[in-house]
Amino acid sequence: STGGGKLKPPPVAHYNLNNVTTTPDPLQNRENILLLTPMARFYPAYWDNLLQLKYPHELITLGFILPKTKEGNEATKELQKRITKTQKYGAEKDRFKSIIILREDIDPPISSQDESERHKMQNQKIRRAAMAKARNSLLFSTLGPATSWILWLDADVIETPPTIIQDLARHDQAIIAPNCFQRFWNAEKKEMDERPYDFNNWQDSPTALDLAKQMGPDDILLEGYAEMATFRTLMAYLSKEDGLLHEELPLDGVGGAALLVKADVHRDGAMFPAFSFYNLIETEGFAKMAKRLGWQPVGLPNYKVYHYNE
Amino acid sequence: STGGGKLKPPPVAHYNLNNVTTTPDPLQNRENILLLTPMARFYPAYWDNLLQLKYPHELITLGFILPKTKEGNEATKELQKRITKTQKYGAEKDRFKSIIILREDIDPPISSQDESERHKMQNQKIRRAAMAKARNSLLFSTLGPATSWILWLDADVIETPPTIIQDLARHDQAIIAPNCFQRFWNAEKKEMDERPYDFNNWQDSPTALDLAKQMGPDDILLEGYAEMATFRTLMAYLSKEDGLLHEELPLDGVGGAALLVKADVHRDGAMFPAFSFYNLIETEGFAKMAKRLGWQPVGLPNYKVYHYNE
Ligand SMILES: Nc1nc2c(ncn2[C@@H]2O[C@H](COP(=O)(O)OP(=O)(O)O)[C@@H](O)[C@H]2O)c(=O)[nH]1
Ligand SMILES: Nc1nc2c(ncn2[C@@H]2O[C@H](COP(=O)(O)OP(=O)(O)O)[C@@H](O)[C@H]2O)c(=O)[nH]1
Ligand SMILES: [Mn+2]
Ligand SMILES: [Mn+2]
Repeated sequence: STGGGKLKPPPVAHYNLNNVTTTPDPLQNRENILLLTPMARFYPAYWDNLLQLKYPHELITLGFILPKTKEGNEATKELQKRITKTQKYGAEKDRFKSIIILREDIDPPISSQDESERHKMQNQKIRRAAMAKARNSLLFSTLGPATSWILWLDADVIETPPTIIQDLARHDQAIIAPNCFQRFWNAEKKEMDERPYDFNNWQDSPTALDLAKQMGPDDILLEGYAEMATFRTLMAYLSKEDGLLHEELPLDGVGGAALLVKADVHRDGAMFPAFSFYNLIETEGFAKMAKRLGWQPVGLPNYKVYHYNE
Repeated sequence: STGGGKLKPPPVAHYNLNNVTTTPDPLQNRENILLLTPMARFYPAYWDNLLQLKYPHELITLGFILPKTKEGNEATKELQKRITKTQKYGAEKDRFKSIIILREDIDPPISSQDESERHKMQNQKIRRAAMAKARNSLLFSTLGPATSWILWLDADVIETPPTIIQDLARHDQAIIAPNCFQRFWNAEKKEMDERPYDFNNWQDSPTALDLAKQMGPDDILLEGYAEMATFRTLMAYLSKEDGLLHEELPLDGVGGAALLVKADVHRDGAMFPAFSFYNLIETEGFAKMAKRLGWQPVGLPNYKVYHYNE
């Protein structure tokens, strides 16, 4: 030993994963939330919604991944502007613990972000595989040893209850999905209305399982396409106006629009398959993989979040 | 805006994954290495071997995960002692960039770490599933946005060439495995000798694929058991004394004793399945998953590292 050099030795970090709790009362237990968003476009309403979250911002780390397209550059600039405003000039209580922005290193498979183009069935497999890789890059690069929960929130989810983190965590579920709706102008009723938007939260059906059996190992089942009727039970259609807000529904497939996940689920290895996994892909494949690891996803049909209306 | 609070705003970290290179010359390009070790026992020779690595230590982050058993406590203490000696009192050039130590939060399925007990076939599935989860916890918690390569190195691998990182990276392969041998006293020859140790680096065989076809979806194929002859091509047996040091062999299964992986392979989602994946598990399942993601593992039959002899 030389008796020490000039530089201060780098700290050694110890983490007992046993001491990182993930409880129904994360606020009381000061649990760290990692809020992850893949972002192709920046919506000011998304940021406004983040700001109104009632969970202590100093316990929330934000992680973003944006594509390396022109649109991605534009979104990065807009995001950066709002971040500076909040983190540098904003009220202390508004500031988040830390923020990580990743830019993708691969070209996106489909250049257009228009809804009609990106929802075309033949485009779905490559698009969802690319989305899966983006989610995994973001997750693997940002999850730390002190993270208790991951809140997946899409960039176009622009309205959630301010207590969404507390409300979802209260259920003490490994994976929990609110119901993703969309507000629209009902021309008939001449008033604002809402409709189901995300069809990736579902319970399996014998038909879907039969369809999968007839498929090749690389094929994927998709939800929400008339040409491939699955007869799955879709959570999107199960919300009841007079239903209990906290009613639970076990799920076999989940979407990523809004999803609270215990960090240990990801730590066990549950990720977003970019390949056909039991003929499922991305967030739906994630649900299946979590189930194989012994974690049961649930949904809340009557607890709503809202997707942007293009 | 309140015009700013009392605390300095936390920094916003930007990472362009495109600027994090993973090249055949990592030293020249100052690429960050994450060296990951699941550790049930501490071997002083393992640490001595780390210290003699010729890759700049200031570019190497070490990550450990230890079980929460009595043995794990003991190993943590021993590890901590050597860390303090190196990081605090050691020569500057010996110090590593940073060190993260994780303790598992689940009870290990098999309490004994004795080789005969842990190698019993009926114990293998639960044991390897637990190992897979330990590797994933470690990986998901330590991989950062600036990591270029992950070097997996078991705690009982006590001898590697000092230039192992440069030597393996030079091949520019997504996943590359040296051949893991073991030194022993050859009583017949009355001299030190060496023998193949790790049988998880293999090329598939029609027999193994047939065996898998006849198995249930939750069963796993194991290598190195007489009661389940797979007739796979085992890299362990392919080393030649006069062979080229850098000869490559494409692999279908890999072991974790020593394994260099490009960070993007993991970022795409390739992890260690703790469940039967194509009837494979843990590191062998990882190889299959990587292949499904388009990454081809290779091995170096004549490039050797050495496992401790109990
Ligand atoms: N990083 C990244 N994010 C993307 C990409 N495409 C879409 N996104 C984001 O991923 C989320 C889901 O995509 P979206 O197109 O809204 O899916 P949909 O609502 O199911 O049609 C949204 O937050 C998008 O902004 C991409 O290529 N890269
Ligand atoms: N964290 C953790 N590490 C373990 C556990 N069991 C073994 N290890 C480590 O994992 C690596 C591989 O395990 P080992 O028993 O050597 O496997 P083998 O050489 O194939 O018999 C070694 O570095 C062990 O020290 C465990 O339960 N938890
Ligand atoms: Mn959307
Ligand atoms: Mn070993």
